Amino acid sequence: MLASPVYLTTALVTILAIVFYFFTGMKVGSMRVKHNVKAPATTGAPEFERAFRVQMNTLEHIPIVIPLLWLTVVYFSLWPWAAPLLGVVWVIGRAMYMNAYLKDPEKRGPGFGVASLAELLLLILALIGIVNAFVFAA
Amino acid sequence: MLASPVYLTTALVTILAIVFYFFTGMKVGSMRVKHNVKAPATTGAPEFERAFRVQMNTLEHIPIVIPLLWLTVVYFSLWPWAAPLLGVVWVIGRAMYMNAYLKDPEKRGPGFGVASLAELLLLILALIGIVNAFVFAA
Amino acid sequence: MLASPVYLTTALVTILAIVFYFFTGMKVGSMRVKHNVKAPATTGAPEFERAFRVQMNTLEHIPIVIPLLWLTVVYFSLWPWAAPLLGVVWVIGRAMYMNAYLKDPEKRGPGFGVASLAELLLLILALIGIVNAFVFAA
Repeated sequence: MLASPVYLTTALVTILAIVFYFFTGMKVGSMRVKHNVKAPATTGAPEFERAFRVQMNTLEHIPIVIPLLWLTVVYFSLWPWAAPLLGVVWVIGRAMYMNAYLKDPEKRGPGFGVASLAELLLLILALIGIVNAFVFAA
Repeated sequence: MLASPVYLTTALVTILAIVFYFFTGMKVGSMRVKHNVKAPATTGAPEFERAFRVQMNTLEHIPIVIPLLWLTVVYFSLWPWAAPLLGVVWVIGRAMYMNAYLKDPEKRGPGFGVASLAELLLLILALIGIVNAFVFAA
Repeated sequence: MLASPVYLTTALVTILAIVFYFFTGMKVGSMRVKHNVKAPATTGAPEFERAFRVQMNTLEHIPIVIPLLWLTVVYFSLWPWAAPLLGVVWVIGRAMYMNAYLKDPEKRGPGFGVASLAELLLLILALIGIVNAFVFAA
């Protein structure tokens, strides 16, 4: 099961999401240096604060999207490829969000919307799959 | 294994925890609008700051409780139902914590205690299960 | 599979990482009391702020290192023991980081480096394992 193409692809997408998250963290590190914001401060130049909020907001979603990705691939047996596909959409949405936020926080809406929609769909598909499995088990 | 009732219930409880966490995040979003706290600021009206801390504190526990939930259901074979049961107790404790904190941060103790106890029990049961499996494997 | 020694050890290392993270959180709680930093404030005495940043930084890595640990043990079949071993190195690195940071934030480098290297190696080994499985499946 874990060696099937759909599971391997889901594993790759998990790593893609983690690499993206690393990238938001490195951005904070470079802004810390650029604007000389000494640890443990997390406020200072607006550019630093934006990068910090992008990382924090990604952190707020990473522990959600990874379990949802795997719950969907495991339980939504109707079309498990939905899981890695929505995972990729999530990363794209987060990248849009990051790029927009770093320029102007007011423009973070569309990327946030895309990523949130992907999360919501993962949650709904996982739920359908679990409830369906319960019905079949009964 | 993954389609057995106790695993399906654990999957449902995972989703319940995630939905609760989404809810704490939406609360922050609505407080941001209500009190006009513009991103990337995370300070402002006390009501906003409380909602933000509730979300942050839930975020601090989500990446812990989800792995513990699954380690317990997998390894505590003596009574795997303990895992989803303690997961539900955790969500109830977090909901108590949220409701109390939003009114008065000084009253966050009981809910925090219930959720922490559920986490601690999950950790202990997972540990017992793993050590037990080691002894049987030896 | 889940009851094999390498999986059981990976489960134990997961719990070790979680216990370490709990510890960073308890440190924040005790500093909150010691320096009388009332919730929801997260700024105040430097000693409190450092403890808070140590916990936050550990939180930033926990949802990454746990999935990487399991992706590596599952997919890096060449030598799955690399996973729990690097997990232990990660905890040691984080403990070094914590001890250094609490004394002087400027000295947090070495521990951070050790933990980051362990994470990076986990990521690379998981990636090698997944790509390898893809090639074998094709």
